[in-house]
Amino acid sequence: MFDFSPPSPLVYQDLLKTALLEDLGMAGDLTSEVAVPATARARTEVRVRPAGRIAGLPMAVETFRLVSPEISVEILRPEGSDVAPGEVVAVVEGPARAVMTGERVALNLMQRLSGIATVTARAAADAAKHGARVACTRKTTPGLRALEKYAVKVGGGVNHRFGLDDGILVKDNHIAAAGGLDAVLDRIQGRVGHMVKVQIEVDSLDQLEVLLKRPVDAVLLDNMGPDVLRKAVAMVAGRMITEASGGIRPEMVADYAASGVDMLSLGWLTHSAPSLDIGLDFSFS
Amino acid sequence: MFDFSPPSPLVYQDLLKTALLEDLGMAGDLTSEVAVPATARARTEVRVRPAGRIAGLPMAVETFRLVSPEISVEILRPEGSDVAPGEVVAVVEGPARAVMTGERVALNLMQRLSGIATVTARAAADAAKHGARVACTRKTTPGLRALEKYAVKVGGGVNHRFGLDDGILVKDNHIAAAGGLDAVLDRIQGRVGHMVKVQIEVDSLDQLEVLLKRPVDAVLLDNMGPDVLRKAVAMVAGRMITEASGGIRPEMVADYAASGVDMLSLGWLTHSAPSLDIGLDFSFS
Amino acid sequence: MFDFSPPSPLVYQDLLKTALLEDLGMAGDLTSEVAVPATARARTEVRVRPAGRIAGLPMAVETFRLVSPEISVEILRPEGSDVAPGEVVAVVEGPARAVMTGERVALNLMQRLSGIATVTARAAADAAKHGARVACTRKTTPGLRALEKYAVKVGGGVNHRFGLDDGILVKDNHIAAAGGLDAVLDRIQGRVGHMVKVQIEVDSLDQLEVLLKRPVDAVLLDNMGPDVLRKAVAMVAGRMITEASGGIRPEMVADYAASGVDMLSLGWLTHSAPSLDIGLDFSFS
Amino acid sequence: MFDFSPPSPLVYQDLLKTALLEDLGMAGDLTSEVAVPATARARTEVRVRPAGRIAGLPMAVETFRLVSPEISVEILRPEGSDVAPGEVVAVVEGPARAVMTGERVALNLMQRLSGIATVTARAAADAAKHGARVACTRKTTPGLRALEKYAVKVGGGVNHRFGLDDGILVKDNHIAAAGGLDAVLDRIQGRVGHMVKVQIEVDSLDQLEVLLKRPVDAVLLDNMGPDVLRKAVAMVAGRMITEASGGIRPEMVADYAASGVDMLSLGWLTHSAPSLDIGLDFSFS
Amino acid sequence: MFDFSPPSPLVYQDLLKTALLEDLGMAGDLTSEVAVPATARARTEVRVRPAGRIAGLPMAVETFRLVSPEISVEILRPEGSDVAPGEVVAVVEGPARAVMTGERVALNLMQRLSGIATVTARAAADAAKHGARVACTRKTTPGLRALEKYAVKVGGGVNHRFGLDDGILVKDNHIAAAGGLDAVLDRIQGRVGHMVKVQIEVDSLDQLEVLLKRPVDAVLLDNMGPDVLRKAVAMVAGRMITEASGGIRPEMVADYAASGVDMLSLGWLTHSAPSLDIGLDFSFS
Amino acid sequence: MFDFSPPSPLVYQDLLKTALLEDLGMAGDLTSEVAVPATARARTEVRVRPAGRIAGLPMAVETFRLVSPEISVEILRPEGSDVAPGEVVAVVEGPARAVMTGERVALNLMQRLSGIATVTARAAADAAKHGARVACTRKTTPGLRALEKYAVKVGGGVNHRFGLDDGILVKDNHIAAAGGLDAVLDRIQGRVGHMVKVQIEVDSLDQLEVLLKRPVDAVLLDNMGPDVLRKAVAMVAGRMITEASGGIRPEMVADYAASGVDMLSLGWLTHSAPSLDIGLDFSFS
Repeated sequence: MFDFSPPSPLVYQDLLKTALLEDLGMAGDLTSEVAVPATARARTEVRVRPAGRIAGLPMAVETFRLVSPEISVEILRPEGSDVAPGEVVAVVEGPARAVMTGERVALNLMQRLSGIATVTARAAADAAKHGARVACTRKTTPGLRALEKYAVKVGGGVNHRFGLDDGILVKDNHIAAAGGLDAVLDRIQGRVGHMVKVQIEVDSLDQLEVLLKRPVDAVLLDNMGPDVLRKAVAMVAGRMITEASGGIRPEMVADYAASGVDMLSLGWLTHSAPSLDIGLDFSFS
Repeated sequence: MFDFSPPSPLVYQDLLKTALLEDLGMAGDLTSEVAVPATARARTEVRVRPAGRIAGLPMAVETFRLVSPEISVEILRPEGSDVAPGEVVAVVEGPARAVMTGERVALNLMQRLSGIATVTARAAADAAKHGARVACTRKTTPGLRALEKYAVKVGGGVNHRFGLDDGILVKDNHIAAAGGLDAVLDRIQGRVGHMVKVQIEVDSLDQLEVLLKRPVDAVLLDNMGPDVLRKAVAMVAGRMITEASGGIRPEMVADYAASGVDMLSLGWLTHSAPSLDIGLDFSFS
Repeated sequence: MFDFSPPSPLVYQDLLKTALLEDLGMAGDLTSEVAVPATARARTEVRVRPAGRIAGLPMAVETFRLVSPEISVEILRPEGSDVAPGEVVAVVEGPARAVMTGERVALNLMQRLSGIATVTARAAADAAKHGARVACTRKTTPGLRALEKYAVKVGGGVNHRFGLDDGILVKDNHIAAAGGLDAVLDRIQGRVGHMVKVQIEVDSLDQLEVLLKRPVDAVLLDNMGPDVLRKAVAMVAGRMITEASGGIRPEMVADYAASGVDMLSLGWLTHSAPSLDIGLDFSFS
Repeated sequence: MFDFSPPSPLVYQDLLKTALLEDLGMAGDLTSEVAVPATARARTEVRVRPAGRIAGLPMAVETFRLVSPEISVEILRPEGSDVAPGEVVAVVEGPARAVMTGERVALNLMQRLSGIATVTARAAADAAKHGARVACTRKTTPGLRALEKYAVKVGGGVNHRFGLDDGILVKDNHIAAAGGLDAVLDRIQGRVGHMVKVQIEVDSLDQLEVLLKRPVDAVLLDNMGPDVLRKAVAMVAGRMITEASGGIRPEMVADYAASGVDMLSLGWLTHSAPSLDIGLDFSFS
Repeated sequence: MFDFSPPSPLVYQDLLKTALLEDLGMAGDLTSEVAVPATARARTEVRVRPAGRIAGLPMAVETFRLVSPEISVEILRPEGSDVAPGEVVAVVEGPARAVMTGERVALNLMQRLSGIATVTARAAADAAKHGARVACTRKTTPGLRALEKYAVKVGGGVNHRFGLDDGILVKDNHIAAAGGLDAVLDRIQGRVGHMVKVQIEVDSLDQLEVLLKRPVDAVLLDNMGPDVLRKAVAMVAGRMITEASGGIRPEMVADYAASGVDMLSLGWLTHSAPSLDIGLDFSFS
Repeated sequence: MFDFSPPSPLVYQDLLKTALLEDLGMAGDLTSEVAVPATARARTEVRVRPAGRIAGLPMAVETFRLVSPEISVEILRPEGSDVAPGEVVAVVEGPARAVMTGERVALNLMQRLSGIATVTARAAADAAKHGARVACTRKTTPGLRALEKYAVKVGGGVNHRFGLDDGILVKDNHIAAAGGLDAVLDRIQGRVGHMVKVQIEVDSLDQLEVLLKRPVDAVLLDNMGPDVLRKAVAMVAGRMITEASGGIRPEMVADYAASGVDMLSLGWLTHSAPSLDIGLDFSFS
């Protein structure tokens, strides 16, 4: 199994602090202060309601660590596990008021990341049957790109560019601004660093034919249905990586993958995946 | 019509900067640099693909303002409008490279907020037929609570608590930690500020009966189906605000609202609403 | 006794870092560097000079923790204690240079917060004799609102709104802008969340009479002397919470409270309370 | 007149943003949103209630600038003016909701800084009669040191060290840690930068006598009454700057200054000065 | 000519603010306050002392913009120009105190970036004679990577990876940790995103021979002299990009480039380039 | 030996985080993730390639601490040591991926600071032969002033002003703006705090003669060669500290110091010192 590294806490600590302060405000948890004795301790089970793939455990651990060094988290199912409905993935113990302070932020994050991982895992499995892989896009939630792209990786997907800065992806607008596909390819010549890959988006087989005269690292076949994709893949014949994109929803992945493309990219994975329901079950002492 | 104020840019400027830097990285937009002439100018239409309610225009304007003072944005349809498929809601003009720099962040935010507003508007309409209102919860995306709660308001929904600090909401865990409902009510007595409302969650009619002896500002009727809700509303008989919650999805709103409750709260509005597809159509000069 | 929670360190860590950097600058403690051997250790007693109520111990602990993990703080008198002149409330031990680095910031904060708690405790006692409570306002030091409001709570006072966002308080300006008291009450109707309380400020008995036809959660009786207040309280007759405000200084609390109002709010508690003198007495080894 | 520069807004912008967000929270000004029409405009006079010296106008201007570019501020009395009760020092005009958003933060800051300037001006005048000057200390509010020290300057006082890093001030603790006054003076020898001044605190005439054998830039005469101070000044005979400190309250300044010392430093100026009452009087259109 | 984009100010604004606050401290410019009348205006010429290539003008403009909107900067020689000794590249005008506030920060940054661009331009010219290009490394000044890599680009160099995240570069340590070159190549297989390039470092021709059986995008020929490099280039025979690195100083570039490698990377460009002397010549009015 | 204190980590933690995030990006270390097993552990020696003086060890320790609490650093040669080529100054042990994450940032900082300390140590030794000291200036790298000035101190140099705020240094521009040297001296009179030193820059013996009538704490003799300096020193005759500056490079220090000046200041120490080559040698287990 691929032993991926979660992002360093340095990457998301500020996000967690912001999220905790959103929830605490200046006055803190008014309810716990009046309802829960300061000395009460809680033991809580992090339980997944429906089946799914778990992502976000390291972030939940860091959330509780930021709230209080007196909270301990025991992981029962490792990050990336596929869990059954009702399974307990971790146990959180500590001062009751402190655990309640971190509860909502930890869950909000785990629910979102596990939602993405769950949908991605299903799509990746559908694609894999045809030897294809699924990728995410830059359509991520502002402020959460690193974590959402990580969740896609936990789900078995591939990360496309993280931003405008780590790859060349020439889209229709760039072609229009440059004055045509050949003009763009001329401009790129000799101006791109040797560690940067180049991908060109085409939205017709005619455009693809032009590109095939000067192949680049990858081609993005935009808004083509499975049938047209199949023709495109045949035309490319392995000279470039082929990637399909444009309005692909998870349930279409199998059909699109059957066309023979190498990759399918879905903005849907990060902008529309529903969250996975996860809760904390408390007991007190 | 209610002339709500969008949050001050002070509230979300840091989020926008973070999101822009996520996308720019340190090297900036490699593609535009090679493909788009530095002097090219762009005129782009912000076009909604399917029908929906628009939210996030002020944030899009601020995004482009942060990118460059040379970009201008003209709003064609005001925030909160219900738009038809293909309608243009705004026009963005400026240096092509700069407009492309802000494009993805502005769209990612508008798509998410409009998605929330669109779903909320439908749920609010369903609820309104029975004189009820819909509310959001604290199940928001980390870092986006202010904006997501604002989107719910744009959608015609009501904001429940923004955080742990602006209202007392006693849940089952608090009751357990305190040693029962009466114990909690005793603890609350005299310890809550005069500007703070108190709501108690009950999950059975028996528990409600106990609460009715010492009514508070509002009761949260958790995980009750429409029939039980109807009985609960009858028992309360107007002595407290009644709010239903627990796994309510948008398509269930009408049934639940028919029970006569005052409010329905749906975490779904913020944690699972799919984004509304919005794009930028470019022309260059 | 009320076991209130101090704010989470997440709420004030940035303030402490800012304060420490104000004092350290880039060059650090020039004097200790030349005068105190690097290996010297200090044991210091945190001693209160005059009598007062202690607030700010958790913040002092956090300050020293931020300076160095090698400093330990032992609390001798718990937060909220009433101490006699010269009493030692805590003992700080550690590397001498490090303790001196944190000294001024810890004291500046404790002195201010204890000053507020001390004044509040006296005012609260005066009010309590007549069954009333004292509250603070939004007239706090920029950047210290959470801590100053906490100090009021330590002093036995009540927190009014933390900001513009956690309650409706309609003042004379709002009434003027809206076109009169009735106009405001009309506008509020149906637009306020179910977890938000509404208070209206009136500055005459005539205005109060209008308000009594449409009572809200609370009324703010502004700039009325004890005699007028007494009449106002009689008119309200328990239908709303009554709160007096406007230029009330601590020494007037008893007279005002005798009028029968429920609450008195004093901006003075946070904007003009003198600091409580507290010092560190060092011994070295 | 001395044309001092206020601190650059870069120095205090983060403080203002923090203060505005303290007041706005995530939900913003709930009251104005319901009570004040979005299109209402306000004209407000910044009026000082009692007599005093004005400080903080540049910070108030910057506060309103941060809130909205549509607000304009006209300064009627320049920073540092001594104003009579009821005088209007500035006029603020703009969208009513926006002006109300900035109101409290601008006033909280001006009130505090003007309070310090007012007290300082009186103390400085008392000292000046005897040729002495008054100075502030490091006993400032955490996060506000730059502004409070500036207010002292506006009041005609002198700024002592801004932090541990811009001058050597050897106190009793340092002497104890170093093993005596001579030991400290030995350690200092040759280790201090040529742009750094050195001041030694002594608390007895005996200690002063030791110091006089090896005079430094300045001596801090700590906790000495006017009579002892007079003897100390005579002993020093102009060989060093003399500064008195230790529990000096504003009303004692004249007596202490009469001793002939060059400087008096008062922590009181920044830690206990009451705020100057200033308000905004609104009219709407 | 290549019309490169400078980084967005969003990327370096925080650095500029930090640098300005380093220089201003809390007390601001003590000298200008006493020596320069508040109303004085300055006109200053930004003059380069020795010949060199100019980089950093956009950052200087932004620095002065942050200091005061009343400062204007006129650019006489565009970014990337090669200038003669004594040439004036820009003119800065505005309030004298404000211009002096920004002076040192603007110059410190321009001097460093122009120093890098100047050295890079010479090295790039030496390399170009042999058809090679020069690249920078990750050996940059902490906090300045984006700007230093930009200066290399202004100098005509190529940017290698910006960080650990935008390319695979397998070094000797990775090979050792993985258990040999083949083991690494096996691990990479199928785990790298389709937009990520892969480069392997080898430090002997034997190692290169192994790599040639499974060529990747690029090979880093580490610590080889020109003669060995020549053999390596012959062995690769165009199957991969060849890059030489390891202790190459600018004066060695011509010799190394003559070996036929495609690229030379020099940490020296960013970690040891001396600054280019640039000054501000003031005149006052 | 002088037991100087390194700056508090509070002063440079944000810089380290920024630098680590520059290197990690959002995707983290792609190479280690694929090449290095998650369970691999590393032991690495921090080895200096050429001889030099070590500075920056505390910052390296803090860097690894920020990356992971599981990394330990053992210091073999203390900060400020003069080391021989190839000496190991520290050993870093921990999880291999984590050590590699911190490697580049720790080295980039140590190399730069040690480069400055090494050059300074040589210059200080040359100056010391003539009883003079060397000082740095404000010509530091933006964002690194505290650390670079600290490195100068480690090298045995003296810190001149840290910023515009901790000393008066009147330069030619100030004299021109004020209307002459006498005008400046008049303006300074009575306006400078008693803890602030005053230095005046002169660039001719004539100007020095004017200054000698009203001596201040120090004189900066700008752009004078050794012969003129010798005359200047004779003229001053100990009445003020004398400091030479203006284009002095390390190799000129001995000549300049022989003139008898007290201090020499060199911008070169911080803006042009080449880095000291330091590497990490890994072994794995």
